Amino acid sequence: MDMDRFERGRKQLEKMSGTGVDAMLDNLKDIAPDLARFTVEFPYGDVVSRPGLDLKSRQLATVAALTALGNAPVQLNAHISMALNAGCSREEIIEVITQMAVYAGFPAALNGMAVAKVVFAEKDRNMQS
Amino acid sequence: MDMDRFERGRKQLEKMSGTGVDAMLDNLKDIAPDLARFTVEFPYGDVVSRPGLDLKSRQLATVAALTALGNAPVQLNAHISMALNAGCSREEIIEVITQMAVYAGFPAALNGMAVAKVVFAEKDRNMQS
Amino acid sequence: MDMDRFERGRKQLEKMSGTGVDAMLDNLKDIAPDLARFTVEFPYGDVVSRPGLDLKSRQLATVAALTALGNAPVQLNAHISMALNAGCSREEIIEVITQMAVYAGFPAALNGMAVAKVVFAEKDRNMQS
Amino acid sequence: MDMDRFERGRKQLEKMSGTGVDAMLDNLKDIAPDLARFTVEFPYGDVVSRPGLDLKSRQLATVAALTALGNAPVQLNAHISMALNAGCSREEIIEVITQMAVYAGFPAALNGMAVAKVVFAEKDRNMQS
Amino acid sequence: MDMDRFERGRKQLEKMSGTGVDAMLDNLKDIAPDLARFTVEFPYGDVVSRPGLDLKSRQLATVAALTALGNAPVQLNAHISMALNAGCSREEIIEVITQMAVYAGFPAALNGMAVAKVVFAEKDRNMQS
Amino acid sequence: MDMDRFERGRKQLEKMSGTGVDAMLDNLKDIAPDLARFTVEFPYGDVVSRPGLDLKSRQLATVAALTALGNAPVQLNAHISMALNAGCSREEIIEVITQMAVYAGFPAALNGMAVAKVVFAEKDRNMQS
Repeated sequence: MDMDRFERGRKQLEKMSGTGVDAMLDNLKDIAPDLARFTVEFPYGDVVSRPGLDLKSRQLATVAALTALGNAPVQLNAHISMALNAGCSREEIIEVITQMAVYAGFPAALNGMAVAKVVFAEKDRNMQS
Repeated sequence: MDMDRFERGRKQLEKMSGTGVDAMLDNLKDIAPDLARFTVEFPYGDVVSRPGLDLKSRQLATVAALTALGNAPVQLNAHISMALNAGCSREEIIEVITQMAVYAGFPAALNGMAVAKVVFAEKDRNMQS
Repeated sequence: MDMDRFERGRKQLEKMSGTGVDAMLDNLKDIAPDLARFTVEFPYGDVVSRPGLDLKSRQLATVAALTALGNAPVQLNAHISMALNAGCSREEIIEVITQMAVYAGFPAALNGMAVAKVVFAEKDRNMQS
Repeated sequence: MDMDRFERGRKQLEKMSGTGVDAMLDNLKDIAPDLARFTVEFPYGDVVSRPGLDLKSRQLATVAALTALGNAPVQLNAHISMALNAGCSREEIIEVITQMAVYAGFPAALNGMAVAKVVFAEKDRNMQS
Repeated sequence: MDMDRFERGRKQLEKMSGTGVDAMLDNLKDIAPDLARFTVEFPYGDVVSRPGLDLKSRQLATVAALTALGNAPVQLNAHISMALNAGCSREEIIEVITQMAVYAGFPAALNGMAVAKVVFAEKDRNMQS
Repeated sequence: MDMDRFERGRKQLEKMSGTGVDAMLDNLKDIAPDLARFTVEFPYGDVVSRPGLDLKSRQLATVAALTALGNAPVQLNAHISMALNAGCSREEIIEVITQMAVYAGFPAALNGMAVAKVVFAEKDRNMQS
């Protein structure tokens, strides 16, 4: 294992998600540990940790892409949460998802907004408790 | 026609594209003038002109979505150009397209980068002449 | 707010759905009231209310597109119901979804048919009660 | 070969396209003659020739789906032409493509309209000559 | 009905799925019996039963395509099970799904792997009982 | 740069493509050298070079996925060529593309076959010269 890339990715992902990466690794550990490792190494160790674009813009771009593609609601949920952690305001996230009505159609935007609503409600509950 | 939305959209689109909207309107004028009008009114008059998200982030989100969807290279070309006009650096655009390798696969990212290469080369030629 | 477009869209959507638009507006009211408004204004106020194509054909076209895209089952459910309200027979809806096996593959058609089955069963229950 | 399905499909396709199917068969004859045969048998022999939905509605549904999917411009060209042959007006075709801006986004609708423009111009040239 | 194609498809599907086709036929029998029949005749009677490619490779290709498309998890579940029945090892299936991270992005691969995990766990339970 | 992964990927890609990777690297060298490097490292150095699935099956899976997605004809062209280099017969490639008519629709299969026809014709010309 390339510890540099993995460790850089792990730190990046933990910084972005606010939690450890163990849950994701555990979930894939039995069936596909290498895909779990790749998911830490390439997206987070190689790509997202690069300079050249601030983390807020990276997360808004990911929210845009996942809303437009429309076939990964679990990942969209995680990335909306990471967008908030990166300092994006709720308003900015709502604007990006709304804008997807133009480029991917209203159903994609409405389904993306439904995911955002769930994430925001969960954050509100966590704040109150 | 709702002149407010149309005029607001026209100004927004002209500010973003650096040229008039007449070419787009002319192209659709005979076959679908109302789709041309809608394209000014809704995306530019209603959505992109909204406060709540800066224009740079809006354009990076659009470049992300069109790269990920992969079926609109003409529109991706136009929006990369508008991203530059909005103050995005080439490096930022390249980062967003590169990041799409994670979320939509390498072919989508490589095809998006090929479009960016054309746009950047055209800008270079225009600067020299 | 442009009351003409919103009111025209609201009437169009109420005519098509057989119910008020309040549920949809309420659902988005806290998080994205403007996306809710856009969803009434542009699809229903601007596009679907246009002359030039009868409402039955519009709904069959929408059922075709949502079945082919395959990533908006909630919206497909709503539009199959609106297709029935517009006077499409169950047989016509089944034919359109079946035809999508040709253009978008059997999984898309089978998933679309599963949505239609739910809508038809619900209509049957409502008739009996 | 199942001559009934093939012959029924051939007649259906010739009626719809206004020309023979030989060009399509010839094009695939060397590389994939069975895919050519399947394309006559299943879409035209089995599906489109069914009662239960008039041919105009079938063609508008296909134009809707291919515009929304956005990755088959050659087939969209052929089906817009067949929609005209089936008695759809240009206005109806334009309305269906415009409506796709709602469900699949503006780029999909604009690209579909560009294909329609080519088909209509070719028809105009053929009429004049 | 073309009994040859239907019977050939039924046998092929039963060989591949290890169970009868009655469940699928029953599920669609009331709403769309012809789509059920088409699903036996064309995919299994015409295509998958062809010589020229071994069944293992056919199933790995289908797992690849459904993982990449990402909008048919129910069908992906069925085809992973049929891939195991065709003699594919779990490792081979995991490799194909992992490889889709390259061509369709990490979310598609992770969602495909989640489906595989469910199929494998169900097989394990069935073996134990 | 991680020379191990890059060198392993370079050798894998050269073995598969039968030519050097320099053309691809050169093409992206000015605009996005890191995306070029990632394209060697991750798909070829990390994924395709893994044991657990033979190279023929890997290439047939990639041909299946790119045909189904339908938005990367340039990459499909390259991977059909690499499938031949990996020992896949033309018949096997044609079968995989034909099978995509079932899972992604006839337009996707017909467009994939058109790409295969170009690749096969080029190979024939190269053999004659």
